[in-house]
Amino acid sequence: MLKKSLALFTMIFLIASPTYAAPTVESLELSVNLVWVMLGAFLVFFMHAGFAMVESGFTRSKNSLNILMKNFITISVAAILFYVVGYGLMFGSTGASFIGVDGFLLSGVGDIGFFVFQAMFVATCATIMSGAVAERIKLGSYIAIVAVMTAVIYPVVGHWIWQGDGWLTSLGFSDFAGSTVVHLTGAVGALMVVLILGPRLGKYKGGKVNVIPGHNIPLGALGVFILWLGWFGFNGGSSLAADPELVPMVIGTTLLSTSAALVSSAAYTKLRFKRVDASLSLNGVLAGLVGITAGCAEISLGGSIIVGLTSGVLLVEGIRFLDAKCKIDDPVGAIAVHGICGIWGTIAIGFFSTNTGLFYGYGPAQLGIQAIGVVGVIAWVAVTVGGFTYVLNLISPIRVSEEEEIAGLDFAEHGSNAYEFKDSVLTNDDAEPTAGLALADRLNNLSTDKHIKTE
Amino acid sequence: MLKKSLALFTMIFLIASPTYAAPTVESLELSVNLVWVMLGAFLVFFMHAGFAMVESGFTRSKNSLNILMKNFITISVAAILFYVVGYGLMFGSTGASFIGVDGFLLSGVGDIGFFVFQAMFVATCATIMSGAVAERIKLGSYIAIVAVMTAVIYPVVGHWIWQGDGWLTSLGFSDFAGSTVVHLTGAVGALMVVLILGPRLGKYKGGKVNVIPGHNIPLGALGVFILWLGWFGFNGGSSLAADPELVPMVIGTTLLSTSAALVSSAAYTKLRFKRVDASLSLNGVLAGLVGITAGCAEISLGGSIIVGLTSGVLLVEGIRFLDAKCKIDDPVGAIAVHGICGIWGTIAIGFFSTNTGLFYGYGPAQLGIQAIGVVGVIAWVAVTVGGFTYVLNLISPIRVSEEEEIAGLDFAEHGSNAYEFKDSVLTNDDAEPTAGLALADRLNNLSTDKHIKTE
Amino acid sequence: MLKKSLALFTMIFLIASPTYAAPTVESLELSVNLVWVMLGAFLVFFMHAGFAMVESGFTRSKNSLNILMKNFITISVAAILFYVVGYGLMFGSTGASFIGVDGFLLSGVGDIGFFVFQAMFVATCATIMSGAVAERIKLGSYIAIVAVMTAVIYPVVGHWIWQGDGWLTSLGFSDFAGSTVVHLTGAVGALMVVLILGPRLGKYKGGKVNVIPGHNIPLGALGVFILWLGWFGFNGGSSLAADPELVPMVIGTTLLSTSAALVSSAAYTKLRFKRVDASLSLNGVLAGLVGITAGCAEISLGGSIIVGLTSGVLLVEGIRFLDAKCKIDDPVGAIAVHGICGIWGTIAIGFFSTNTGLFYGYGPAQLGIQAIGVVGVIAWVAVTVGGFTYVLNLISPIRVSEEEEIAGLDFAEHGSNAYEFKDSVLTNDDAEPTAGLALADRLNNLSTDKHIKTE
Repeated sequence: MLKKSLALFTMIFLIASPTYAAPTVESLELSVNLVWVMLGAFLVFFMHAGFAMVESGFTRSKNSLNILMKNFITISVAAILFYVVGYGLMFGSTGASFIGVDGFLLSGVGDIGFFVFQAMFVATCATIMSGAVAERIKLGSYIAIVAVMTAVIYPVVGHWIWQGDGWLTSLGFSDFAGSTVVHLTGAVGALMVVLILGPRLGKYKGGKVNVIPGHNIPLGALGVFILWLGWFGFNGGSSLAADPELVPMVIGTTLLSTSAALVSSAAYTKLRFKRVDASLSLNGVLAGLVGITAGCAEISLGGSIIVGLTSGVLLVEGIRFLDAKCKIDDPVGAIAVHGICGIWGTIAIGFFSTNTGLFYGYGPAQLGIQAIGVVGVIAWVAVTVGGFTYVLNLISPIRVSEEEEIAGLDFAEHGSNAYEFKDSVLTNDDAEPTAGLALADRLNNLSTDKHIKTE
Repeated sequence: MLKKSLALFTMIFLIASPTYAAPTVESLELSVNLVWVMLGAFLVFFMHAGFAMVESGFTRSKNSLNILMKNFITISVAAILFYVVGYGLMFGSTGASFIGVDGFLLSGVGDIGFFVFQAMFVATCATIMSGAVAERIKLGSYIAIVAVMTAVIYPVVGHWIWQGDGWLTSLGFSDFAGSTVVHLTGAVGALMVVLILGPRLGKYKGGKVNVIPGHNIPLGALGVFILWLGWFGFNGGSSLAADPELVPMVIGTTLLSTSAALVSSAAYTKLRFKRVDASLSLNGVLAGLVGITAGCAEISLGGSIIVGLTSGVLLVEGIRFLDAKCKIDDPVGAIAVHGICGIWGTIAIGFFSTNTGLFYGYGPAQLGIQAIGVVGVIAWVAVTVGGFTYVLNLISPIRVSEEEEIAGLDFAEHGSNAYEFKDSVLTNDDAEPTAGLALADRLNNLSTDKHIKTE
Repeated sequence: MLKKSLALFTMIFLIASPTYAAPTVESLELSVNLVWVMLGAFLVFFMHAGFAMVESGFTRSKNSLNILMKNFITISVAAILFYVVGYGLMFGSTGASFIGVDGFLLSGVGDIGFFVFQAMFVATCATIMSGAVAERIKLGSYIAIVAVMTAVIYPVVGHWIWQGDGWLTSLGFSDFAGSTVVHLTGAVGALMVVLILGPRLGKYKGGKVNVIPGHNIPLGALGVFILWLGWFGFNGGSSLAADPELVPMVIGTTLLSTSAALVSSAAYTKLRFKRVDASLSLNGVLAGLVGITAGCAEISLGGSIIVGLTSGVLLVEGIRFLDAKCKIDDPVGAIAVHGICGIWGTIAIGFFSTNTGLFYGYGPAQLGIQAIGVVGVIAWVAVTVGGFTYVLNLISPIRVSEEEEIAGLDFAEHGSNAYEFKDSVLTNDDAEPTAGLALADRLNNLSTDKHIKTE
């Protein structure tokens, strides 16, 4: 055990760690890259708090507990399954160009730091779906879909694009931090599940497009800030090394693209709807982040502003198109943010990459490669998630009953409420006595026959 | 002063800091370890925001301001007292095996970074108590107990276990990041104060176990996410060095144990109560974190999943046991989270340590040493916190009056409310004129005779 | 593209980055300083979430969306303008002592990391204003003032103080992390705009000083925690290097000053008003942070406690003075926090600096220099922001109409509400049919003729 009382500078000589040896230039490079990648991993982890707040704030209060629980379950299930099977499928080194076949349970894997960083990413892809399917999917069905997406479907996409012998890597497909790998994968999965689920009750009643407003936009706005913060780790950490030239460019393009997207989405809603729409502008921030995720390492600062400005407008029209034209009910706009802007961000490399882009005189080759990757990933995710969810829905409907949806999933799945602004004590004064089951009893009866006595 | 306009790479040669010299492998190791430990310190600091949100969200809205103020006061008082006296008692190098006797006011202490990291830890131990005693303790009494815990009681435990010549260190007791030092100490202190305080009004009325629901679970859930994030710094930073082999293991076990505990607590409440209970599952996250805190550096990734699964179930049964059987009213479940899982995490080393554990063929010796440490710390904290609080309560009751408890501590202690969802202006139109005391008057009268005029 | 599947240690030899070369002591110093400065930049970025939560929580719910949008727009506009023009004005190297004249669009700028760090700072200065002018300024007018402040006014101050040939730098003026550059600049700008705007309706009705309470103090308290966290990056990152001696002192003084200010503001409100006032104490935290920002690198740990204790009391009396005596309506106390404590923090160096301070036997010279800087910055900002806002107000009034202020800016500017605690669906059942404008229609009509159908 480390002796915490020893000052750091004496630790250099006295440290008891079995791996300790005198520092060298090589060992220090490992250390500084470690710190950078761990910082990135922590920030990506924190994105899950951001997603949870965005999804909870932008939906109704009667479904808040359910959304929060889904977000916690997603990161947890994803981390465990990625350890058990996903990492091997994604980064297994002796696999074919389609899928990895070793490294399960991290067997033979030396770089645990890389696993930790990647494990934080996995859940992101599944969490994207949780917003789109909010307010009407059964918790159990949701967990089953998350398990398949994080254990198999996402790792396969990752293998194609981020593993050295993946077929898209070999083609020259470029996606630095995952506009396609993470965001498009999550959005296509979300779309397939939403198509099977159908819209929320009342959303398109009478052929009209009705607004179902979120219940707590300040909480959602905090979530957007957290996501923006976390994305600096998402994009920045994807460098995997504290490269003093690459990293600041990545952070700079991420900052400027996002800023531009907020400005363009806010300005565009003002032009289009005569008001600066808060929800669309907040989604504009996320659009700018997704849009620069693929190209953040090879697009210039000026280019990133153009990519972001475009993302913000695309987002507004994308949400309008999916909602008003396609009647696809996505409570938080996740499919537009992560799907449409995920495609845009991937394709933008073909135009704006300073290494391969059309606007820098390199011809349309990269553009074609990027398009192939987008089409390939959409096909893979649509077929697998769609097929799995279709079968799952046949076996047992994935949607809650109409009564449960009206009552809210917090009551239906968790027997409780997210908010209680009246100070109260719940008592069981009139409940039937059930010997030995006091707590279970209380929990089961929490909402059904609660007796509120205001003190 | 640094010339901020100079690019970093020219700063290497021009930097004006008096300590500056050409970099060496040794100086760089100091720098990279510094960055890692500071990152850890910041994350541990942020845990106080997490505790504040968890404690506020899981209790009633009429006590929110009070809980928030307690959390801010705790970190502030703890930091100052640790600087003045606590650091010396804990890490004083010429002390006996029981207590340090130099280094007060950091006199002679060279490593300020280590002090900063440790100062963030101290308040954690006291903050644990603040949740358990919520909604009924006087602010002044709370501050007195915090002062004693952070200035003396915790530093003594820390000296035993984290200082080179502490008697538990000498025995071979292992507690990498503080399942015992921080969490068990905080929980035992909380238990003693709760026993003296008694339960909240109405909690066990008529011999029944009543539920007093929290008022803002989304805020509490955000707090849990913040705590999970912060814990990566709590456990990871405890390495005190950016060790490329040790650190990823610590972060990996912390991630997997917590994920497993969320899964097991959610699944167990589903089995036991037919519903996935949100509050217990969120506490399950904290249980998984506390459970792996002692052993995060010497338990395997697979082992950490088992430790976490166990923590989640222990937490649910622990809360049930303390509440329904023992009639110990702990509004946020802090004693079960930090006490029961703190013991479990400490003992788990005896089973799961890859260096000394029973399951790895090392016999029961480590298990015995861990048990001795647990018993010793419980005895020390119970006697000192119990004794101090008992005397304090004799001198002046530590519990607010029944009227104040019913009105809420926000009104009683702070003369204000945490929420005001009606847009309003308070005026003093009818207040007695009090020359020269306009602000004091307003503040004093804020809740007693406020006149709300909705605009 | 980086091959993510390669373990970090093999990456040392295989990494494909065009800038890659074998690590050296010099390249590693760049890397470790990069990680430190990026960590600082991320934390400073996160402060904007803190400001948004503080400003939203401490004002009325009918203005929450507007405040949130202002905060997002501020960081976005500031980042883009700083890239285009501000960085050049501030750090242009061939400028005179008054203003920089090259480096626009980062032309010829090699250190993008330094730009990123500074870009996060810029918006802070403008965000300070957003709290003071809350609940009554037009969004468009606000954006115009932000643009001028971040593109020109702040960069000029920065050039004077943080650029090698600035006239205050040459005088020996000291402001390590920006008590004057950032906070005083923001506060003076805020004061000028507030003087032109006037107080909120009802604030001083009938010659009385009325309280307009915030609507969500827990959210505001979270914001204060986030700001405190972010400030470790604000002050710590200003070292621009992972200096193992300087950095821990900076973090230590920041922690202790803030802790002391919370204690003194809480205690002082208890003495003065018989209650521990939560809002003033939370502002006390910010006072302690602003107060130590200038001197965090040259004041001792003990000195920082005295600076903080003073800041906390100054804050309480400052808010009282501005509100009750001067009838300056600053909804969140920003002018007192950033202005009064910004001056105090700057001047405190003259007393407490261990290098130049009066209390360390160095005479009054530094005190005089600090005072000159304070007066110079106040004059510059007052004249420019005051002049610009005065002209802007002549061209088009910067204040919303009385009807809009009463209705709330969320409705007036954004056509929506921040909260919706009744679960509802808005329908257009009775709205006039407007072919092809379904979404625009919905957005425009959101609040004017909404038809709520509770499910």
